[in-house]
Amino acid sequence: MNERPRPEGDPVTGDKLVVFTPSGRRGRFPVGTTVLDAARSLGVDIESACGGNAQCGRCQVELCEGEYPKHGVTSCADHLSALVTEEHERGLAPGRRLSCTARLLGDVVVDVPPASQVHRQVVRKAADARTVETEPAVRLYTVEVQQPDMHSPSGDLTRLEDALEFEHGLSGLAVDAAVLPQLQPALRAGAWVATVAVHLPHRTLIGIWPGRREEVYGLAVDVGSTTIAAHLCRLGTGEVIAAAGRMNPQIRFGEDLMSRVSYVMMHPGGEKELTGAVRAAVEALADEVARDAGIAREDIVDASFVGNPIMHHLLLGISPVELGGAPFALAVDRAVTQPAAELGLAFHPGARAYVLPCIAGHVGADTAGVLLAERPDLSDDMTLLVDVGTNAEIVLGNRRRLFACSSPTGPAFEGAQISCGQRAAPGAIERVRIDPVTLEPRIRVIGCELWSDEAGFAEAVAGTGITGICGSGIIEVIAEMYLAGIVLPDGTIDGALAERNARVRQDGRTYAYELVAGAEGRAPLCITQNDVRAIQLAKAALYAGVRLLMERAGIERVDRIRLAGAFGSHIDVKYAMILGLIPDCSLDHVSSAGNAAGTGARMALVDVRARREIENLVRRVEKIETAVEPRFQALFVDAMAIPHRTDPYETLRAAVTLPEMPTATAAEAPRGRRAGRRAVR
Amino acid sequence: MNERPRPEGDPVTGDKLVVFTPSGRRGRFPVGTTVLDAARSLGVDIESACGGNAQCGRCQVELCEGEYPKHGVTSCADHLSALVTEEHERGLAPGRRLSCTARLLGDVVVDVPPASQVHRQVVRKAADARTVETEPAVRLYTVEVQQPDMHSPSGDLTRLEDALEFEHGLSGLAVDAAVLPQLQPALRAGAWVATVAVHLPHRTLIGIWPGRREEVYGLAVDVGSTTIAAHLCRLGTGEVIAAAGRMNPQIRFGEDLMSRVSYVMMHPGGEKELTGAVRAAVEALADEVARDAGIAREDIVDASFVGNPIMHHLLLGISPVELGGAPFALAVDRAVTQPAAELGLAFHPGARAYVLPCIAGHVGADTAGVLLAERPDLSDDMTLLVDVGTNAEIVLGNRRRLFACSSPTGPAFEGAQISCGQRAAPGAIERVRIDPVTLEPRIRVIGCELWSDEAGFAEAVAGTGITGICGSGIIEVIAEMYLAGIVLPDGTIDGALAERNARVRQDGRTYAYELVAGAEGRAPLCITQNDVRAIQLAKAALYAGVRLLMERAGIERVDRIRLAGAFGSHIDVKYAMILGLIPDCSLDHVSSAGNAAGTGARMALVDVRARREIENLVRRVEKIETAVEPRFQALFVDAMAIPHRTDPYETLRAAVTLPEMPTATAAEAPRGRRAGRRAVR
Repeated sequence: MNERPRPEGDPVTGDKLVVFTPSGRRGRFPVGTTVLDAARSLGVDIESACGGNAQCGRCQVELCEGEYPKHGVTSCADHLSALVTEEHERGLAPGRRLSCTARLLGDVVVDVPPASQVHRQVVRKAADARTVETEPAVRLYTVEVQQPDMHSPSGDLTRLEDALEFEHGLSGLAVDAAVLPQLQPALRAGAWVATVAVHLPHRTLIGIWPGRREEVYGLAVDVGSTTIAAHLCRLGTGEVIAAAGRMNPQIRFGEDLMSRVSYVMMHPGGEKELTGAVRAAVEALADEVARDAGIAREDIVDASFVGNPIMHHLLLGISPVELGGAPFALAVDRAVTQPAAELGLAFHPGARAYVLPCIAGHVGADTAGVLLAERPDLSDDMTLLVDVGTNAEIVLGNRRRLFACSSPTGPAFEGAQISCGQRAAPGAIERVRIDPVTLEPRIRVIGCELWSDEAGFAEAVAGTGITGICGSGIIEVIAEMYLAGIVLPDGTIDGALAERNARVRQDGRTYAYELVAGAEGRAPLCITQNDVRAIQLAKAALYAGVRLLMERAGIERVDRIRLAGAFGSHIDVKYAMILGLIPDCSLDHVSSAGNAAGTGARMALVDVRARREIENLVRRVEKIETAVEPRFQALFVDAMAIPHRTDPYETLRAAVTLPEMPTATAAEAPRGRRAGRRAVR
Repeated sequence: MNERPRPEGDPVTGDKLVVFTPSGRRGRFPVGTTVLDAARSLGVDIESACGGNAQCGRCQVELCEGEYPKHGVTSCADHLSALVTEEHERGLAPGRRLSCTARLLGDVVVDVPPASQVHRQVVRKAADARTVETEPAVRLYTVEVQQPDMHSPSGDLTRLEDALEFEHGLSGLAVDAAVLPQLQPALRAGAWVATVAVHLPHRTLIGIWPGRREEVYGLAVDVGSTTIAAHLCRLGTGEVIAAAGRMNPQIRFGEDLMSRVSYVMMHPGGEKELTGAVRAAVEALADEVARDAGIAREDIVDASFVGNPIMHHLLLGISPVELGGAPFALAVDRAVTQPAAELGLAFHPGARAYVLPCIAGHVGADTAGVLLAERPDLSDDMTLLVDVGTNAEIVLGNRRRLFACSSPTGPAFEGAQISCGQRAAPGAIERVRIDPVTLEPRIRVIGCELWSDEAGFAEAVAGTGITGICGSGIIEVIAEMYLAGIVLPDGTIDGALAERNARVRQDGRTYAYELVAGAEGRAPLCITQNDVRAIQLAKAALYAGVRLLMERAGIERVDRIRLAGAFGSHIDVKYAMILGLIPDCSLDHVSSAGNAAGTGARMALVDVRARREIENLVRRVEKIETAVEPRFQALFVDAMAIPHRTDPYETLRAAVTLPEMPTATAAEAPRGRRAGRRAVR
């Protein structure tokens, strides 16, 4: 505690502020609102199985004590209602509360630990698309086994198999070598009752325990180039019981994918180091989620993996060098099922690992995960799925056909190649508005909910400073510069403005826009002509890939756009469309798909039918290699303009006032299937 | 060389002596005989593929230079003809000769190295029983794989699988994780031609090499409690290209099986040490045979194993404690096929291991190997197979039915429990003859080919001394004592003889026979009443087991007896029958089956049909547990007499003059199915 008066809610309404970490979501609620209700109305995932009756203990949160100047909050224990009997009885860890009983009395910062975090997400996903039924690859069967009889000698395994056939109709099973030494002790310890785990796709007995056992667990892993995320699930129900993420330790071999491939090219055998690093990270995550959930790592009997082709290959111990150049040949594209131990992963000795299939050399198992989570093939709507990273992976289709490609966007959308670009981290500019008259910007910075023209902003960001601009910020600033007339439709920063506005200034032979003034020896943050060009190239590549698929599909409009991954979660889709990253579409029908790849991994983990579906679906996808597609270059050139040289973006213009587009002469209009299009205005 | 005149052959015929190691076989041949011819006439296995024309180089032997007083030989290079041109051209290692060109000029000791040793043995076996065709579990397939095409992206594995299906009709293969990293380098190094190894029983791709490859190898291993023997075979042809054996290092945990089981009972988890020891020995043998054959250990892609149930379990990492007591439950009786790596064996990363099935708690995969090598089920003759170790494993049957049991003979046949018993090693008495009039013995000792009444015997054994009596010696001495009337049919040493012959003397309350007189402070070697009783118990157990199976089969006579294993190779079957170890049978129809268990392992290694056959055959075997069979005790008591209380041994008596049998009264004759037998004389 300190001398400062406690922040006691909104001065007008008296509502209390609650900030949830790690999501960063925040809102104000009347005194007495439970933390769980607040979380629900903010869309923060907190698990609760008992309907908020303090019975299940799953909705635990942790109060973060102390001052949070960025949030303008001092958070302390007496800003929540006192512990109730059920909380005392449960013996919660210090600082832990049941969110269904803790009520807001003042402003608080509340952390949602992984074990409480993610259940809703899967249930929501499952509820979205299909029933919550699961059909895990690894199933438990409890059997009563006949005791040995000297008069009719037979091995314990034979009698166990007889029981499995008699009680469960299972026959012809293979048996893991690791099971054999466990067999006799388990049968005797369980008084001739035992539970076995059977990997059904390979009809293999992979584990045995004495007596009855109800639960085993699986790990769904999304191996990203930057971060690796793992979800621990109950295989019987599909329920997520813990989640964790960490940086991909391969980053020490190269920040982006291509530099890791280069590392292997320069250091023959270096793939072993990269493989070892990613596997060690998966094992560390497994330890972390197992600890959080109170299980042993040996209780994990199945795992599923998604990742881009290079991560996919490195996880499997395959050198990615062939993916570094044409013809971009995958070693293996089909789904891979292996003993986890053969992938160097020490879970249960019989644990299996399922790696989702890749689609093409640049369209990986992560996209397969997105496909599985989104299932565009179940709808008549023509859906566009876009997952933006260093490459953009693009899927377009509906019930009838599916197309996929990868566009070489480069890392500009991740803030690289931008003069003041940086990763999304505290201090990075994430939101920008530019007054079209004065050209004055307003910004917001990660870690602070205030806009730069609000009182207290300077103090709030004093800790981190304003350090650069992240991916979503760069999209917004360039779109706002375009809306304000600073950037012309052809991407030029209008030098004429420099004469009447100090924000626009000469920068060598081109011009730049000053977003944040320099101060105290710190250089100003400017958006340069090169920055705009980098984004133009990236967005043109993305749009050209999308348009290539649209041409193949023979369509002029998509019905729905889903943006997957972190980029999709953070950008404002309106600005993405204003800049022309994505084609025209009703803004209501553009949304974030969240971590759809990870969701796909979880679905494949707990449901063998999902595995069969994605394996079949991937075979149906028509793969298009942009690198050898002559149309791609033409489409790319057309897409350099903001939002586009020929696409009228009629729906967008109906919602947002855009600057006039340049006039295209009839001679410039492309021929062929696009020749029939209306003249652009 | 030394001053002594060279031993220049037989003083009468001038023939030269040749001694082959490691077999110890020896013989005299005219000057100019080739070493290969000498070997052949002695039954020494030396490989030769070119018909003795100095072309194939496979018949290499090594001249052992120096003095061999035990053999009465000085062996030196000029006791063989000079090197011929072909030998010079081949660049043989020092001391090496081609046995087809080296001719005897004097006495020599010649070592047959493993690489030259064993081919004939398998060819003989194969020629015995069936055609030499093989159908290995792991087969090689060479394919030409389509190159990747960006326009139709597919993984290299998919195109490899397409080629395997197109060229060889193979589809739906699983793929080992270890293959995936090899795939792309192999296809490119081989210019899109590659050879893959497929484990056909599991339809799994286990290995890949660039270009064409013609040969891979397998290892057949006989895991005995005392020694482990390994044969390296070409999988394509079944040919044995190297062999090696070594002591089972588990001996440090206990000389016999039960003491090893006790070790595990006393040291929970101790099975890991025993498993580690046997696996390390298998790997060392693999290294040895691979080196001898000039291949890499990684070229071994399949392995087969036989062993008694305890060795079988320990190889698989299973604690043998359940086998140490009733109900003697095997963990697994069916055949086991696993990746060799899962058994802790580092051959090729995808290598498989096949462990033959066990038959019952005391009748193991070694007996399955004997069954496979001997195939009693293919004949109408009623065949008795006996494999004597600490237990005797017994199989009886023909085309119609097969029976098996194990008899608790104890280790007396191995020289244990005998006052002067020892393992078969230089210095051990292996042959005995007793003059029925004077009761004077003549003996032969391992490591010396002279009988004790021949000139030079004392000098020849001076080095080792006469240290004890081995298994075959103890059978002979007691049988000869019986033939000489020293041992009466009830097993008593006849004390009445002590009055008139110094060889028979009082030994406490019983009598003993002095086989070797004491000298120079060395105690005499005597056969005591306890020694005779130990052999009586062992032989009665063996006979009772055999008779139990004969009763089950409803037969009074067997047509053929095959004695497997080292004991069977060394004993004189006549003496075994005189003592009543085995039932009456024409001596012409009693023979050694050699290392039939090891032969069975080799057959299973190179032929999947043999695996199916033995798996089916083992299921057909009717297992009889002597420990719970009431008849066993009665049969055991009858079998205590020498040769037997009721069995007339008519065939044997026609060939050998036996002492009169004691008269059995009609009241003593057993009832039931034996009641109709002729009265014994």
